[in-house]
Order: sequence, then C-alpha cells, then structure tokens
Amino acid sequence: MGNEINHQVRLAARPAGTPAPEVWQHVTGPVPEPGPGRFIVRVSHLSLDPAMRGWINEGGSYAPPVELGSVMRALGLGRVVASEHPDYAVGDTVTGFVGVQDYVETDGTGLRKVTPAEGVPTERYLALLGMTGLTAYFGLFDVGAVAEGDTVVVSGAAGAVGSVVGQLARIAGARVIGIAGGPEKTGWVTGELGFDAAIDYRSEDVSARLAELAPDGVNVYFDNVGGEILEAVLDRLAMHARIVLCGAISQYNAEGGMAGPRNYMNLLVYRSRMEGFLVGDYAARWGEAVEKLAGWLAEGRLHSREDVVDGTVDDFPETFLRLFRGENTGKLVLRLRSE
Amino acid sequence: MGNEINHQVRLAARPAGTPAPEVWQHVTGPVPEPGPGRFIVRVSHLSLDPAMRGWINEGGSYAPPVELGSVMRALGLGRVVASEHPDYAVGDTVTGFVGVQDYVETDGTGLRKVTPAEGVPTERYLALLGMTGLTAYFGLFDVGAVAEGDTVVVSGAAGAVGSVVGQLARIAGARVIGIAGGPEKTGWVTGELGFDAAIDYRSEDVSARLAELAPDGVNVYFDNVGGEILEAVLDRLAMHARIVLCGAISQYNAEGGMAGPRNYMNLLVYRSRMEGFLVGDYAARWGEAVEKLAGWLAEGRLHSREDVVDGTVDDFPETFLRLFRGENTGKLVLRLRSE
Repeated sequence: MGNEINHQVRLAARPAGTPAPEVWQHVTGPVPEPGPGRFIVRVSHLSLDPAMRGWINEGGSYAPPVELGSVMRALGLGRVVASEHPDYAVGDTVTGFVGVQDYVETDGTGLRKVTPAEGVPTERYLALLGMTGLTAYFGLFDVGAVAEGDTVVVSGAAGAVGSVVGQLARIAGARVIGIAGGPEKTGWVTGELGFDAAIDYRSEDVSARLAELAPDGVNVYFDNVGGEILEAVLDRLAMHARIVLCGAISQYNAEGGMAGPRNYMNLLVYRSRMEGFLVGDYAARWGEAVEKLAGWLAEGRLHSREDVVDGTVDDFPETFLRLFRGENTGKLVLRLRSE
Repeated sequence: MGNEINHQVRLAARPAGTPAPEVWQHVTGPVPEPGPGRFIVRVSHLSLDPAMRGWINEGGSYAPPVELGSVMRALGLGRVVASEHPDYAVGDTVTGFVGVQDYVETDGTGLRKVTPAEGVPTERYLALLGMTGLTAYFGLFDVGAVAEGDTVVVSGAAGAVGSVVGQLARIAGARVIGIAGGPEKTGWVTGELGFDAAIDYRSEDVSARLAELAPDGVNVYFDNVGGEILEAVLDRLAMHARIVLCGAISQYNAEGGMAGPRNYMNLLVYRSRMEGFLVGDYAARWGEAVEKLAGWLAEGRLHSREDVVDGTVDDFPETFLRLFRGENTGKLVLRLRSE
C-alpha cells in the first residue's frame, strides 16, 4: 500500500431533511494492512441508494443506524489488493458493504466474490446483476406475485430498481405502466425498456392518467416513492391487488416527517394487501435469480443502464443528493478514480 | 297489514364529521303489500355497525353509497309477515340487509333464513352467530393466518368484532392483548373473555404498554380503529407480521379527512403486510364458520355480549352515535318495540 492515502467519508451529524454538507466529515489516513485472516479491498465503485437515507437517521431503519463518527455505510465493489485470508486472493473482485472509503480492511463479512463476465461493465454488478436486480426480482415475483395479464404500475420507473421491475413484469406477460419524472425518463422506459405506457408525474395528472391507462384497475403496484403517487394508485386498485413496498423516496427528506397514505383503507375496499420485504431475506435464492437475470440480459430481453459519475469518495455527499432530485436514470454509481 | 304504519329513517344529507340529526329524515307510510314473488319482513332487530358511516359518504366505501332520499342501509333481523314468494313462509326468521325501517318489501336479495336455536337470544344472530362473528373468523384465521404461540393484538377489543377476535385467537393458542377504552371494558376482556392482557388507551400510554406486553413483537394485529393506535402497533411488529384491516373508527368522523399511518414503511422494516378483506368474499364458507362458532359457544369457549337498546327506528340516529363515543360493549343492537 506504500504511501497511498485512504480517503473516507464519515457521518458527523444526523440530518434533518436533505443531508447538508455538514452532515459529513472527510477524513484521510494511511491505507490499512490486513490482520491475520483478513484482507484489504481497493474500492472501485460505490452504489448510491435511496435506502442510505434511512441508515443515517437516529432510529435507523431496517438496518441499525450508522453511528456518528463511523464511515458511511455503502454497497460497492472492488478488488482485493492484499490478503491474509485463505479464501480471498489478490485480484479477486468482491461486492457488498464496503463503506464510503478507498480501502476497506475486512474479514469478508458482508462481502461476496463475483466473477465479472467478458463485455459486462463492472458497475452492472451493482445494478441489474447485483442488489438492484435482486430487489426487483424478489419484490415483483415473490411479494407482488405478478401473473400473466396483470396490470403492473411501478413508480421510480426510470430508477435503478424500477427500470428492472417494469422489464421483468413484461417478461412475466403483464401490462406495465411506469411513473417517472420528465419526458427523457418516460421516453426511455416506453422506448428502450418496452413499458406499455408511462406517466410523467411532473407534467401530468397521475390520477387521471391512471384512470385512462388502467380502466380495470392495478393488480400489482411496486412502490419506490410513497406520498401522493401511492395515494393515487390506492384509489385505482383492482380487487386482490398487491402493493409491494420497496421505498418512499418522496418522504425520506420531509422535515415534518413521513406522511402515511390517507386512503390506506382502500386496501379493505379492494381486498388488497401492502407488503414490505428485504432482499437479504432471499439470500438463499440469490444465485438462482442472478442466473435468470444474466440469462435475460444475454438474450437482450433485459436492458441495464448505469448512471456513472466519475469522481472520488469526497464526491459522495453531492452525488448522493442526485437521487432525491430525480437526476439519475438507471442505477447511480460513483466510480472511483485510481490516483 | 291493516292500518299499521311503516316508520323509516332515510338519508337526507351527507354528513361532514359526526352525523348530525339533520342528516336523517324520519318518514312514515303504509305497510307495503308483497308483489308476486316477493314478501314482507317485520324488522325486529337492527345491527349498528361502524361500517355504516362509510356507506353514507358521497364516494361510498366498499359498497355503493346510500343514495340521498333512500332508506338507510342496515343489517338486521326479522320475521316474514306476508309472502307471495315460494321459498319464504310467514313466520320464517330472516337476516341480512333490511334497512332502517319497520317493514321491508323484498324478493329476498341480500337476505338469508336462520333457524334460531332454543335458548339463544335472537340478537345473537346479528352478533357472534352473524356477520360480526364471521368477520372475526375469516379476518383472524384467513387474513391474519394466526398460529399457535403468536402474539395477537386487537383494537376495539370490547366491541362487537374485537371481542370475538380475541377469544378466537385464544382458541387458536395465541397470546392476546386487547386495546379498549376504560376499565370496565378492559376488565371484561381480561375477565369473562379470557384475554391475556388489555391496554386502556384512555388512561395508558399504548406504545409503552405494548413494549412491556409484547417484548418479542406483535405477530397479528387486528385493527378496528386506525389512527395513533395503528401507528403504535406498527412500531412494535414482529418479523413477517400480519395487520388485518377491518375498520378505522377513530378516523371515520375526522373532519380533516382520514389520516394514514405515518410509519407504514415499518411494513418494510419488519417484512410485514397490511391487508383488507370483506366477509362477503367468504360467503361460500359461512356455513362452516357459523357451525364452528356455534359449537365453541355451546362448549362455553366463546362468550357473546349484545348491547341491546330497546326503541324504535326513530332512535337509530342517536343510537348509532354510541359506536363513535365508545359507549357500547359487545355488539350494539337496536331492538324494535312492537307497537
């Protein structure tokens, strides 16, 4: 590791609303040496995910909160550059919880090896071939129980998970309506991704458009956004519909706190359910799912787009905010420059 | 019917908030004669249900709204007093949608015959042995999927449905915590009904008490009330919990409109689901369920209490409001005086 420097972004304060620069502390230090049974990963890609906003709240979310003073938790990908671990050799590619830092010293907990295929961009293993694709897969097929002929609505349709969900629903023989912000995004999902229709929530009346596009109601709603869009879909459910709760990005930075769907009792009117899940619960089936996703990708039935920002770990705070401004199309990844 | 009078309560205006007397119109008219294939029921008991509040909103709820000028929709029970229908004879007891009136002229749609058993009060066929018991049965067993060893929480625990739900959960081998208002109600559910514990939401901190009483979380929550109590339970779910949506009585008269649970994303944290249902969807299995309920009642494993108000159809508007003031214990029934 010589005289390389390890840059880290640590959590300095808990944010109220949108995380301001003061929330983060930029720290530099020496590159660690691996202890016995441990190894060092040089991080090359960081995954930027809305869920990270929940991790820095005092109460945490589904995961314990990131402690003040700790390196910010992040999924990512990198290569082993030094190893005292029998199962990891220099040159191995690993993915999992690496944190917002150049180098991580680890015993391998929370990481797994991947073997990048010829011609597949590395960042795709954080997107369609990583947690993003797995989240879409288990959310739609297992929680949403999508069936041929269903009408599926997905919000955040041009985002990392949403863009995969809609394509998988098409593969399942469903009709797919995506909700996204702006003509570039709606054009992408109905064009390259093959969605049947899209609603631009910035310029269109979501409720009115849903009434036109889903006259018989919505069988599966995959929700990434919460708020008014969730309420609009709740007003338009088919009988025995399934709402898959994956995210609520419209609510995470609300300073008055999250709002709940005022019309949640439509779940009774339409004998429907709303259900949350975590991809980690399906770990035993990740292999099966990645194989299917990779197969569909190879056949050209799935498309993946990664929105790659080139930079350094110090660019994390600003890049992260792009998620909440709706500035990314596809999976947002920070690719770390080698210095 | 000679010179008998038919009293009716009709819907005169749509209420904002708590239904004021002006919402109702009291009408009298002659007792109808049955047309061909039709019959006349003299109504003896009216069922008072929180769901009726939804039926008089402009949008209706799971049922179409009661039209302005129409007789108020109500479940009830009565006897056939005249018949031109081959399947219904004078003296038959029928139950179903009779409306808030002394006499109903009908072809039998929405009604079914019951055969009152010796020693069973008639009003029990609107309670444990009627829609109320069926709602508890299918909600808890089918939607809630209660299992032995589960911790079950039920709100409106001393109400018509809630009091049955808790007892059924005990029969299923679950631990049952009831939430009700006031010491008389909490004492009844932990005493005669055998609940394991009860929380008095009027004098106790529901969240703090739930933390004490359900340290390992709540597996099934049967919700009759919505609002802050729903939020308190959402903060205390076990993994893979089931929230059964049956009612939201705390919200029905809210003039600012219903509030949704702000922490609904706990469904993701706890990989849980929230699901609505209607007892009508299980009509094919009503016979099986009533048989079980009647059996447990006969064995002394189930108790039923009916809160019977003696009066006339003109007492409906005021009696109905008792539901929203939490004044009833067990099933609220208006027993109509014969004049």
